[in-house]
Amino acid sequence: MNEQDNEKNIRHAERMQRKKAVVDEKIAAAQIERGVLLVNTGNGKGKSSAAFGVVARALGHGMQVGVVQFIKGRSDTGEEAFFRRQPGVVWHVMGEGFTWDTQDRARDVAAAEAAWEQARTLLRDPAIGLVVLDELNIALKYRYLEVAAVVADLLARPAHQHVIVTGRAAPPELVEAADTVTDMGLVKHAFAAGVRAMPGLEF
Amino acid sequence: MNEQDNEKNIRHAERMQRKKAVVDEKIAAAQIERGVLLVNTGNGKGKSSAAFGVVARALGHGMQVGVVQFIKGRSDTGEEAFFRRQPGVVWHVMGEGFTWDTQDRARDVAAAEAAWEQARTLLRDPAIGLVVLDELNIALKYRYLEVAAVVADLLARPAHQHVIVTGRAAPPELVEAADTVTDMGLVKHAFAAGVRAMPGLEF
Repeated sequence: MNEQDNEKNIRHAERMQRKKAVVDEKIAAAQIERGVLLVNTGNGKGKSSAAFGVVARALGHGMQVGVVQFIKGRSDTGEEAFFRRQPGVVWHVMGEGFTWDTQDRARDVAAAEAAWEQARTLLRDPAIGLVVLDELNIALKYRYLEVAAVVADLLARPAHQHVIVTGRAAPPELVEAADTVTDMGLVKHAFAAGVRAMPGLEF
Repeated sequence: MNEQDNEKNIRHAERMQRKKAVVDEKIAAAQIERGVLLVNTGNGKGKSSAAFGVVARALGHGMQVGVVQFIKGRSDTGEEAFFRRQPGVVWHVMGEGFTWDTQDRARDVAAAEAAWEQARTLLRDPAIGLVVLDELNIALKYRYLEVAAVVADLLARPAHQHVIVTGRAAPPELVEAADTVTDMGLVKHAFAAGVRAMPGLEF
């Protein structure tokens, strides 16, 4: 190793030592153990897929997982095919397509209410370690469900249950109630460059 | 149904019809089929979990998936336990912890270079439909790997292979080369409120 490389390594080690001290201190300060309410919102890609990644993570720890999809965009999704065959997962799909496909508000409201009943069953079951409420924000945005009632049910869940809510335009009341909120920002998307939704990547 | 509800439904149907026309037109315009290079970056939660959600999605479509983790934060992750037992997945973990744990630049560079060799093997194999390069951005940020060489290898992959790169601080050259880029923005995080990293949710 020449002298320049050696100096680089020493500076790197010092920098990393300072960083490690900061990280260790933060970890020591965070010791509460409880269920977390997570919201994935924003206009970019990754809101639902991040929730499904956490489903895999939870299953890897032997947890039981419940998923309710509030808006069914299509019937041939890879995530549904994959997770339905995994032990430890219950998977409900409600709704009949994006709301611009049905164009029938009364039917959408009835579907959303039925889906919320499924969600409430999961949210009352302490054996379920993780509940994913996929595209719930869309049902809230169109006021198919009342946000105050939804937040009350979320906050009344078992103390160690995690919940992930996905969808654009999360309402402020839900963001306020959540522990962790990520805004998935669209920097660019292949779709805008003419690439169609690809199986295995987009659905 | 009273008259007010009826009017609400009619307005909703008209609004959704206009929306459907716009969506249908966009879908008709996007007909290219090819592999997509996706980058998940930003300071918020969801970069790696979104990639793992797409792994589940791809497996649901019967695709073969390869994962290389460039930074190993811990040895007990749920995603690794879960996906290692799935057929159709190869899973490599390189590196020996976050870079602030090793504090040894020369060792980190050697580990990153070995991981990149694993990645290149996947990036040359047309049987692999999806390659996940988890935390590659960290290896690029610390210049353990040369970004120009990495981008060249990414662009030389089989035409129908998808790649997802994750990690904070994606370099501009990679963002430029990518098709779809999401910036996972931190709105808030339970960790800052004193909640420790919970198994099944954070790892």
